[in-house]
Amino acid sequence: MSKVTAQVAISLDGYVAGPEQSEENPIGVGGMRLHDWHREPEGQSAVDAEVTARMLEGNGAYVMGRNMFGPIRGPWSGDWRGWWGPEPPYHAPVFVLTHEPRESLAMEGGTTFHFVTEGFDAALSVAREAAGSLNVAIAGGASAINQALAAGVVDELFLHVVPIVLGAGARLLEGVGTPSFEIAEVLSAPAVTHIRYRAVR
Amino acid sequence: MSKVTAQVAISLDGYVAGPEQSEENPIGVGGMRLHDWHREPEGQSAVDAEVTARMLEGNGAYVMGRNMFGPIRGPWSGDWRGWWGPEPPYHAPVFVLTHEPRESLAMEGGTTFHFVTEGFDAALSVAREAAGSLNVAIAGGASAINQALAAGVVDELFLHVVPIVLGAGARLLEGVGTPSFEIAEVLSAPAVTHIRYRAVR
Repeated sequence: MSKVTAQVAISLDGYVAGPEQSEENPIGVGGMRLHDWHREPEGQSAVDAEVTARMLEGNGAYVMGRNMFGPIRGPWSGDWRGWWGPEPPYHAPVFVLTHEPRESLAMEGGTTFHFVTEGFDAALSVAREAAGSLNVAIAGGASAINQALAAGVVDELFLHVVPIVLGAGARLLEGVGTPSFEIAEVLSAPAVTHIRYRAVR
Repeated sequence: MSKVTAQVAISLDGYVAGPEQSEENPIGVGGMRLHDWHREPEGQSAVDAEVTARMLEGNGAYVMGRNMFGPIRGPWSGDWRGWWGPEPPYHAPVFVLTHEPRESLAMEGGTTFHFVTEGFDAALSVAREAAGSLNVAIAGGASAINQALAAGVVDELFLHVVPIVLGAGARLLEGVGTPSFEIAEVLSAPAVTHIRYRAVR
């Protein structure tokens, strides 16, 4: 059955990006350290390699926040096509939450960015339709995942808990009410603990 | 070698107590759910039983915040002797951080509460002396552990990560700078994930 999932690397103090995000520093000051475990395949632990391989598996569509798509705020300018080069890793439709309308953007390898101006619920609805029997993944950042959690639609939340403290930045699980989860899976790697949670409803 | 340790049950959103702490609700609204895994020995998983057994092991002295000792704010009144009855589980000197002087309080079973008005560093110093070759445990709550983390003196932080979201309350790892840890141990239980972190200095 189709699920709505979210997965994200998170610091011990609950941040998924550091402060002062910019084009030069897309994940904020210190935020790149959240991603060391999957950025360098060489020397990666077996567990981290498995989790990395599963990151984009089984997803038929994505919902993504605008800050995750790019650093541009306000009306679109230039021809920003995401952080990922000509062939993004999604290979599926990606519905980007934005207040600024824009034509859909077909990339190589099957990724198409669609820009949704009617809010999270509208984006999820078209993503579900596009995904069919596959999953819809909320690709991040914090705000998009928090909106999904607040809406009560997240079936699985997969946290990659990195033992650093960022002190400031984009906080996950803020303004989402008081949901409960059960533990579906714990994958213990040397430098990160991967915990997959299932929503309790 | 003597270590400074802290261990605490924490929600997914980083709270170690819920909002609105009071004498009737010492751990705040919803906060008691952080402690289900060790409150009811019956039916406890083997991992939780092991972690519960280790909770007070190897400690020669404790440092405790005033809110953890009791609900009284401002000058002492009445004869509050802690939440734990005539024989508290510590069996060692407990140094309570407070702005209000009070005579030491000897309880049954070797626990003595000492009241320290000179701040965290002073409390840690007398606790280290009292502990000798045993460990000093920062018993909580959030503020006492955060002071210890900010001071850079915590050697081990043992988090019991409970898959609930409290939404408000007493937050751990706030105002502590940006310390890093390494993962010393992960103990996976059905309803809580116990992760012991070692400070990286």
